[in-house]
Amino acid sequence: MRATFIYGAGDIRVTDAPDPKIVEPTDALVQVTRACVCGSDLHPYHSAPKTPGGKSIGHELIGVVTDVGADVRTVATGDFVIAPFAISCGVCEFCRAGLQTSCVNGGFWNDANLGTGGGQAEAARVPLADGTLVKVPGIDPATADESLLASVLTLSDVYGTGWHAAHRAGVTAGDTVAVIGDGAVGLLAVLSAKQLGAERIILMGRHESRTNLGREFGATDVVAERGDDGINTVLELTNGGAAKVLEAVGHLPAYEQAVGIVRAGGVIARVGVPQYKEGPIGWSLFGKNATLTGGPAPVRAYIDQLLPGVLDGTVNPGKVFDRTVSIEDTPQGYTAMDAREALKVMIKP
Amino acid sequence: MRATFIYGAGDIRVTDAPDPKIVEPTDALVQVTRACVCGSDLHPYHSAPKTPGGKSIGHELIGVVTDVGADVRTVATGDFVIAPFAISCGVCEFCRAGLQTSCVNGGFWNDANLGTGGGQAEAARVPLADGTLVKVPGIDPATADESLLASVLTLSDVYGTGWHAAHRAGVTAGDTVAVIGDGAVGLLAVLSAKQLGAERIILMGRHESRTNLGREFGATDVVAERGDDGINTVLELTNGGAAKVLEAVGHLPAYEQAVGIVRAGGVIARVGVPQYKEGPIGWSLFGKNATLTGGPAPVRAYIDQLLPGVLDGTVNPGKVFDRTVSIEDTPQGYTAMDAREALKVMIKP
Repeated sequence: MRATFIYGAGDIRVTDAPDPKIVEPTDALVQVTRACVCGSDLHPYHSAPKTPGGKSIGHELIGVVTDVGADVRTVATGDFVIAPFAISCGVCEFCRAGLQTSCVNGGFWNDANLGTGGGQAEAARVPLADGTLVKVPGIDPATADESLLASVLTLSDVYGTGWHAAHRAGVTAGDTVAVIGDGAVGLLAVLSAKQLGAERIILMGRHESRTNLGREFGATDVVAERGDDGINTVLELTNGGAAKVLEAVGHLPAYEQAVGIVRAGGVIARVGVPQYKEGPIGWSLFGKNATLTGGPAPVRAYIDQLLPGVLDGTVNPGKVFDRTVSIEDTPQGYTAMDAREALKVMIKP
Repeated sequence: MRATFIYGAGDIRVTDAPDPKIVEPTDALVQVTRACVCGSDLHPYHSAPKTPGGKSIGHELIGVVTDVGADVRTVATGDFVIAPFAISCGVCEFCRAGLQTSCVNGGFWNDANLGTGGGQAEAARVPLADGTLVKVPGIDPATADESLLASVLTLSDVYGTGWHAAHRAGVTAGDTVAVIGDGAVGLLAVLSAKQLGAERIILMGRHESRTNLGREFGATDVVAERGDDGINTVLELTNGGAAKVLEAVGHLPAYEQAVGIVRAGGVIARVGVPQYKEGPIGWSLFGKNATLTGGPAPVRAYIDQLLPGVLDGTVNPGKVFDRTVSIEDTPQGYTAMDAREALKVMIKP
């Protein structure tokens, strides 16, 4: 099959790779219908060390099951499935608590310990298939509407990740919410906050085409300023800060912005993977009794809740995809996302 | 009157000071029955700059109202009252939400903007008396049992602060809780966790007389090790971390310990005032979806709930006081607490 590998910063290549095979009786094989490039894939794209042998990449995919191991019970050959970005057993303490990203038996795509390849490929081996995969009923991916496939694909990561931010922040009816970041996760955090009843949603971002989609998803205000200017604008708009702040970037200035705009007693929920180890958590956070929460989203936990709205068209999270490439053009997908020419790139193997 | 002032690090003096007077119609004057020295008073005791004129100090007191301004409605001359460590109006958004430490009209004892003196004095002017003071019915402080007065006094700060940690962490029946710090707040965090139903309470501290009191308050395990050893011991005891971690110290190593021992999906609640500006909040916290919460405790919000158990003897938080000094001996009280010869020092003016 053809699959995508990263050989170092800026060096993405699509090459021939062995077809995946059933290794454990709990595995499933999936023929990839759609995959995509994640904002978090850009972190290794910026900083990965040179790796002469290449490392598989990609962790968002939907597809059709082509084979299952002897112990797999919940999916079968021919099923159309969503594969979340975390591989999870479904039965450990953390999976049962809806925190599949802390599964004691699972892990992440491309992890050496699970021996999986990446999602940006023609096919994938999915370990712990019963815990990981979610069957999508009633859709034939060969004939389904392209926009529906796009929305289903967001359930493998970005929609569930935006939802995690809003859910963990405790967004509820009437809330004032600020969302930091106009990437796909930030925009879907806006959509999620809207679904959870937020009355006012302030989107901090400065790419007009993106913030326009944010308005379509439910943002009531857009703040393009950054740093102290951005903080002051939000403090003025909210008369002292937003009760719920969803941080969907992962860089330190975004976190600092969150601390600056959170209201006393409020919550900051982070879902952008922190590209920093330390940050301000002294009086700036403590003094106002603000709560800092969030982490890698257990999107598996949210699919059952979010899928119906996708299937019936209540929401269209797939609008975050503004470019589609073939598997061979995956490197150009990275280039376009890195240059911010594309918001999110779908890969059609 | 006699009152306590700090003139710089290590320099506490008791001097004559003007008797407090009603300044605003919302003020009350209180004759102090008991005051005390707080662990947080030791921070300026260690690091305050030289102040030739002195700065009043102390923020925990109980006493008898001797006069009220024209607008005061909820307390009257002769009432026995608790004065929490934060002065709060009782009517602003944050007071109504039970976050009196973020009151937009209030502040803290010894703050220049409120013009109050400190609590370690014979008398005090209490601004915003209706919002700040809580009347304690049925007690004549002149004849009340000393241990009861001690327990009532803890409601001005340390008991409410320990409670804040347990409350903010969401401690509930059956929980495994770790408490970092065997100071008065840590021990009362143990008591609070026990009251909230925690099944297992691991107290991290190494002063045996204190941890023994912690066991009396409900600690089931004591871990004396610090640093990585302490972390590893708790991880072993809990098979992967404590779901609720109450950090009652305020120094960076205590926070780092909290990050090390919190279970995936768990909560760290800080109530020790951070003596640091930055700390680890990258993957170490984010990766396990841990929540960091807490702040200055709105003890005013908890008094109604906690007072009955104090009055009927269900709990005896006043056991944290192991030394009583006269107002003149307040400096020796600081010395004893700083040297850890005393756990918590009561002042009897």
